[in-house]
Amino acid sequence: MPGFITIEGVEGSGKSTLRSKLAEFFRDNDKEVIITREPGATILGRSLRNILLSPDTKNLTSTAELMLFCADRAQHVEEVIRPALARGAVVICDRYVHSTLAYQGYGRGLDMEVLRSISSFITKDLMPDMVLLLDLEPETALARVQSRVEKSTLSFNVSSLENQGQIDRFEQQSLEFHTRIRSGFLELAANDPNRFTIINAAAEPEEVARQAIAAIQAVSN
Amino acid sequence: MPGFITIEGVEGSGKSTLRSKLAEFFRDNDKEVIITREPGATILGRSLRNILLSPDTKNLTSTAELMLFCADRAQHVEEVIRPALARGAVVICDRYVHSTLAYQGYGRGLDMEVLRSISSFITKDLMPDMVLLLDLEPETALARVQSRVEKSTLSFNVSSLENQGQIDRFEQQSLEFHTRIRSGFLELAANDPNRFTIINAAAEPEEVARQAIAAIQAVSN
Repeated sequence: MPGFITIEGVEGSGKSTLRSKLAEFFRDNDKEVIITREPGATILGRSLRNILLSPDTKNLTSTAELMLFCADRAQHVEEVIRPALARGAVVICDRYVHSTLAYQGYGRGLDMEVLRSISSFITKDLMPDMVLLLDLEPETALARVQSRVEKSTLSFNVSSLENQGQIDRFEQQSLEFHTRIRSGFLELAANDPNRFTIINAAAEPEEVARQAIAAIQAVSN
Repeated sequence: MPGFITIEGVEGSGKSTLRSKLAEFFRDNDKEVIITREPGATILGRSLRNILLSPDTKNLTSTAELMLFCADRAQHVEEVIRPALARGAVVICDRYVHSTLAYQGYGRGLDMEVLRSISSFITKDLMPDMVLLLDLEPETALARVQSRVEKSTLSFNVSSLENQGQIDRFEQQSLEFHTRIRSGFLELAANDPNRFTIINAAAEPEEVARQAIAAIQAVSN
């Protein structure tokens, strides 16, 4: 069974829904499972997540942005992921190294070789056993984000930026940016087919989860 | 005349005093001068400085710490240092790449080659024309820091962490750590003698400034 599974994809592709469903699946199978995400899973990460997603963080350079994601990840790997894997838990992480390659590489145009070498340094070469890529047309993904924002504006149950009826700094980017990210993810998957499972995220959440679980079971046998 | 001058040295070596005196010197010579420091010169940097220096930032890994300093520097170079140099100003920066090499390399034991290559990436190879290294026995430096803390505890004029009668996360480190930093700085200077001027920081502030100005004038002729 894969120990370290990451979920990747553009905003609005259904990553949070899938991670909850996978948690259920592993718990039903009596497996300890840790659901986590980047950025923001540690105390340091929560400070950095606010800086990174806030639309108020103006003029953040691409390189500074990269370094903040890397700081979050370095702390996350050491404090959360490695200890969980070491005691035999399954770790499901919403975004990891491939988000950096897609967003900062394909999206912002930073050098891919540099991104790979910094990623390998900060994670001490910890790569996921399996990447579930939720693939979705950026138009559909952005429409979902927009509708989530509208719904949450009507709701009183608000707590964090992403539930506050606000669009974050990445969601504000152009359709063209998100199209580059999507192609980037697909290229990463094509170059690393053993690690990646591409799932059509336009399907119903139950169908997405069914495909993800089937892929996990296929690897486990 | 050197355009980009950095001041390096252990805590308590008199960097802030020297930077003010150098500012005066350049202003007296009708030269636009920007006095800046790392971390903390930009809006992003101020958030990061609080995280980095706060004794409450527990369990920060060496790599996450490095990435935070790099995020601060990437933003600082792009937003402050390069624009100032481009319009012909002199930039005096309290701590820069050599602090990373000394603290994260010699101090924390991170790989020097990785540190150099990340530094070169985030600064796009912007190195100082001149480094003024304030060299001081760590015992003397730590005693100065302690006395500054005691003095400021008696004062009501408090605003930031370093004036609050608190010892920051770096000042809390052992004497042995600061001894490694000091030797590290000296080794960096020995390997790069054209860039470095070593000044005995045990001397009176006026004498330290006099030597620094003499070194700047020597390069300018």
